Amino acid sequence: MPVRFDLISQGEELLAGQAVDTNAPWIAAKLQGVGLRPGRVTVVGDELDAIREVIAESAARASLVVCTGGLGPTSDDLTREAAALAFGVPLVENEAALAQIAERYRSRNREMPVKNRVQALLPEGAELLENVNGTAPGFAVDTGRCLLFFFPGVPFEMKPMVERFVLERARARFGLHPRTNVILRCVGLAESVAAERMDGFERPGVVVGYRASFPEVQVKLHVDHGIDPASLTAEAVRRLGADHVFGVDSGSLAEVVGGLLRARGESVSTAESCTAGRIAAELTVSAGSSDYFLGGAVVYANAEKVRQCGVDPAVLAAYGAVSEPVARALAEGIRARTGSTWSLAVTGVAGPGGGSAEKPVGTVHFACAGPHGTVHRVMRFPYDRTRNLSATVATALDLLRAQLLTST
Amino acid sequence: MPVRFDLISQGEELLAGQAVDTNAPWIAAKLQGVGLRPGRVTVVGDELDAIREVIAESAARASLVVCTGGLGPTSDDLTREAAALAFGVPLVENEAALAQIAERYRSRNREMPVKNRVQALLPEGAELLENVNGTAPGFAVDTGRCLLFFFPGVPFEMKPMVERFVLERARARFGLHPRTNVILRCVGLAESVAAERMDGFERPGVVVGYRASFPEVQVKLHVDHGIDPASLTAEAVRRLGADHVFGVDSGSLAEVVGGLLRARGESVSTAESCTAGRIAAELTVSAGSSDYFLGGAVVYANAEKVRQCGVDPAVLAAYGAVSEPVARALAEGIRARTGSTWSLAVTGVAGPGGGSAEKPVGTVHFACAGPHGTVHRVMRFPYDRTRNLSATVATALDLLRAQLLTST
Repeated sequence: MPVRFDLISQGEELLAGQAVDTNAPWIAAKLQGVGLRPGRVTVVGDELDAIREVIAESAARASLVVCTGGLGPTSDDLTREAAALAFGVPLVENEAALAQIAERYRSRNREMPVKNRVQALLPEGAELLENVNGTAPGFAVDTGRCLLFFFPGVPFEMKPMVERFVLERARARFGLHPRTNVILRCVGLAESVAAERMDGFERPGVVVGYRASFPEVQVKLHVDHGIDPASLTAEAVRRLGADHVFGVDSGSLAEVVGGLLRARGESVSTAESCTAGRIAAELTVSAGSSDYFLGGAVVYANAEKVRQCGVDPAVLAAYGAVSEPVARALAEGIRARTGSTWSLAVTGVAGPGGGSAEKPVGTVHFACAGPHGTVHRVMRFPYDRTRNLSATVATALDLLRAQLLTST
Repeated sequence: MPVRFDLISQGEELLAGQAVDTNAPWIAAKLQGVGLRPGRVTVVGDELDAIREVIAESAARASLVVCTGGLGPTSDDLTREAAALAFGVPLVENEAALAQIAERYRSRNREMPVKNRVQALLPEGAELLENVNGTAPGFAVDTGRCLLFFFPGVPFEMKPMVERFVLERARARFGLHPRTNVILRCVGLAESVAAERMDGFERPGVVVGYRASFPEVQVKLHVDHGIDPASLTAEAVRRLGADHVFGVDSGSLAEVVGGLLRARGESVSTAESCTAGRIAAELTVSAGSSDYFLGGAVVYANAEKVRQCGVDPAVLAAYGAVSEPVARALAEGIRARTGSTWSLAVTGVAGPGGGSAEKPVGTVHFACAGPHGTVHRVMRFPYDRTRNLSATVATALDLLRAQLLTST
């Protein structure tokens, strides 16, 4: 019998249209990894009876329920109370929960606000689940028929709790066989194109999933116990195009680039016009990035392109800021000034304004300077401002990745 | 009696975690404008019985239901059939629907594929609702107790149908008055502290909500028709602390700062160590930011602090990179070199490594230089790397905001 698994997302902002629920899709994708797909996702707001109702209904219908949200300290955080009502038990103060919350404040030399004490209340008989990233403890209730998990709605707090508490227990309780999940991380490929290239790849015991996290597309192979994923992975990389797959089960594109630089003992600097620091920010997402990232220039105004990177004002005047000569001059200028092994430069029209017939919105010139010279690339992205900038960051990093892979 | 209003989003990709449901939040926000908030949103996949079940449950519970998705021509589009089963009526071919679909193909000089004919099937007695942007007609079912709308899941097709068919009918049928929603945007305030300060603020016709979007906290006042929101807003600002509320129904903190700079005809530059471009990136989220943002320096390595901002190597050696004198020198150096009216500089330990007893992880020194001198601030953030950096960006922008509000 298939395991019926339901998700509940609690939060008035989700119902009121002020926020989009990303928790349920994230949890669904995680549990997909152990072979479970949800029967339904229910979103409820800050109404005690509505939350109680959906918890009671889900507990009666499903074998596994994961509920997020409503465990904060404020008066609109009602999930604890709703769960107690749904199970017909009182809320009781959990000593270990209270100690965890108090300790969290103590370690920061702050006093615990009186308001936060309510977060230590759990339905009687519930199991406390530690939240290492916040004050809202999670809890689990096992009705015999159904195992229910309750976690805070803040993704940064919820995600490690799902990984720590739900996955292994669901596997053990429902006798699921672990599947191997291989994630191929791609750039420069639309999701629909990736899906076309993977058409017909599925076979018994092999399911293909996609996740678009612009501008990246992840292709996931869910491989049943007993099937070797290695040759499947190689075939998928061939189908998708080896130049588009920047990593298999890897970190982000910036982390892959950083790893290559670190292994070679080399460094990079940046000169950014339209992206205004976003490439530098991405290169420093991981701790330890000072091993390979020196710094760079944010050259939004033309005068800054001249001052910080030595771009010739005559070249700016002749070709305009968004041009190959300026991109090359930015990359070569910042590399010479910082003394880095490599440099990345971008100049473009992010939009929505600033476009022309010759250089429409989305036009971006890239340059990567290195020990063997400078390479240039131009793209015309068709997106809005935010996505044009995200695509620019990824394309720049991928340009450096290609240089690192082909140069010795 | 409040109108119970439920939303249903149909689509396997929503359940499997491959896509995020943006339809329900969009419809919820639209209906919020006529004073309706949904009781729940249910997401179901491509299973006939699961869809039938949620339609039947919603029709029994609610007065208004809006369902999106599953009206396409393929075998996994099951909402038509599920609705007919839920209402216990047969599916019948609707002549007007068939004519609309055929006309849509004819106007493009294409022949209607046979498989699209299924889209003209509606539950017996349902009212046809025209889709001007696609081949999937919508329909409405009025059970007397409940009014249900069914629309395609493609946002571009669904949105004009909701605006054309749902809003006015809901207003007329349920005699609704619109509510006013006021959003107070705060920084430097934890959600629990905001809630403490707003304790007892609610009164008949006034509901308070909270939303934490780290490091920002939004406090929302939902004010019923007939109550003046202006004095309520002023009272809420006083309670929260005027220095913490950076905007009322405003854009982001960076947009507020940008607006102040633009109004004054002034400019800003940045010198960033630990944030490595994140402040510059935030200042350029909106189009037109070149009106006030010139550029800046990303000075990750100490040598770059010296080279790009003229920090005295002796000061670096004496006080260390994370120090008040270095923050001041960075701000003053970049301001002098770019010629900007204002400048922001940060230097800190984002973590997880790099901390010491004297300068633990989370220590950040800020400086804002301007026409009347330089102000300094130091913070010790208790978060992880990502959040320490987000909090640093917000604190820096808020420091500039304070200078702009107090200087003439």
